[in-house]
Amino acid sequence: MDCVRVAFQGARGAFSEQASRQLVAGRPVEFKPCEKFFEVFETLRDGAADRAVVPIENTLHGSVHENYDHLLHYHPEILGETYVRVVHNLIGHPDASRAGIERAISHPVALAQCLDFFRRNPGISAESHYDTGGSVKTVMERADLRLAAVASSAAADYYGATILEHSIEDDPENYTRFFLLGPREGRNACSEGTRKTSLVFVTKNVSGALFRCLSAFALRDISLTKIESRPLKGRPFEYRFYVDITAAPEQEECANALRHLSELTEFMAILGSYEPASIPAVAA
Amino acid sequence: MDCVRVAFQGARGAFSEQASRQLVAGRPVEFKPCEKFFEVFETLRDGAADRAVVPIENTLHGSVHENYDHLLHYHPEILGETYVRVVHNLIGHPDASRAGIERAISHPVALAQCLDFFRRNPGISAESHYDTGGSVKTVMERADLRLAAVASSAAADYYGATILEHSIEDDPENYTRFFLLGPREGRNACSEGTRKTSLVFVTKNVSGALFRCLSAFALRDISLTKIESRPLKGRPFEYRFYVDITAAPEQEECANALRHLSELTEFMAILGSYEPASIPAVAA
Repeated sequence: MDCVRVAFQGARGAFSEQASRQLVAGRPVEFKPCEKFFEVFETLRDGAADRAVVPIENTLHGSVHENYDHLLHYHPEILGETYVRVVHNLIGHPDASRAGIERAISHPVALAQCLDFFRRNPGISAESHYDTGGSVKTVMERADLRLAAVASSAAADYYGATILEHSIEDDPENYTRFFLLGPREGRNACSEGTRKTSLVFVTKNVSGALFRCLSAFALRDISLTKIESRPLKGRPFEYRFYVDITAAPEQEECANALRHLSELTEFMAILGSYEPASIPAVAA
Repeated sequence: MDCVRVAFQGARGAFSEQASRQLVAGRPVEFKPCEKFFEVFETLRDGAADRAVVPIENTLHGSVHENYDHLLHYHPEILGETYVRVVHNLIGHPDASRAGIERAISHPVALAQCLDFFRRNPGISAESHYDTGGSVKTVMERADLRLAAVASSAAADYYGATILEHSIEDDPENYTRFFLLGPREGRNACSEGTRKTSLVFVTKNVSGALFRCLSAFALRDISLTKIESRPLKGRPFEYRFYVDITAAPEQEECANALRHLSELTEFMAILGSYEPASIPAVAA
């Protein structure tokens, strides 16, 4: 079976790698870690990867707005979504002991999600690092038994490090939603059953414009699961809207809704239509 | 006349200071610069400032999501809005010459808004600094004639520095909208004429929930000028919505709309009602 080359942002062991494994399950994967989000999109565009995986929203932090902008700019096709439960662990060198840890490094967002842990453990100071997966790499390279990383269990596995304390994050309801992206090669075959579709549009400049646009879905009982607005460059204080709906363009009601929406918008594009994923349960 | 103590984020000469001058025009001001946005809100809450001024959205970057969260958490009252045109200048020591500049420092967002300038001037390298106003302060302290800052003309004035090149930003349509905040001491007296009101609400979990909520305004011809969604903590993939409408709660149609909206929401709060500001023109 051919290897799928998957681009994602972060070092090996990042949460994006975990999402990639979920999204291309059952096929051998060659990972293409990138430093920046735009590089992920460009790696896919340039054909150096077959797929890209990017985070689009987190339940604590909200949307990854930069990636919404890239979705329109690079215009890949959204082929799927998945949810990763973000579990942070205190990870050390295999020779380290929990009691000997004095400093913990990780991406500042990961550290900010473990504030209670650091309050309960004033003997461990938190220090910013460029990446969660990369912090485990650094811990292993330095072989400093007083240094730990805050990262996923996948990162511990990847670098051969040891989990010293599991699940140190403040809020267990911490999930990130990821998109699987591919080149735009014409529409996917539509699978049967429930589908989700992501769209972007710019309303016409009329009163109640957004309300009218949402009516295209509401009047057909098509649910809206997400709406996000982003500024329109060169048109101060006007916006484009990204919405996710639970329907597929191939379904008649949805096709009617999209035709209706196109009457009400200046611009409209389908970003992709895919099988909805479910949110993993928090283990008891 | 009593001095107004105004808290804002950034060093003296920041764009927030310029917004503060516009928002409390005609009264003597004592500025309270803060390092972080949450400190601005806490300075106001603790009574160490009479007013706070925070950016809420920028035409190139979109909303300042952190401040939307703080508006609900600290729940001050929005008393006004203003727009600042973001003009970046190359600023040096009074003894420096434009030709002698080799490095320019500023906040990374400001540098990113001057990419064309740095492409046209490969002899000047761009380096990140903590703040736009603070970069001018640093240039003056170091008295290094090869070093420049990228910041507002107000920052140049404040630190006694010289503008070596005016308006080096890529996109002249670069505006930031700011809110003037005060303690919640009961509603403002409603001025006559056009008003704007900012609200936050959580929809009931029914189909077409957002569409129904927007109908409260659309059916009464009340315009929506902004909508922003933020995640609800502890309720994965549910959202609260922030909207701005052009109406005041004291006006009958608006009062009806708000009563209608309260039937459709789990939670609703008025963040403030204020006179709308106009967007400054780009000078020819």
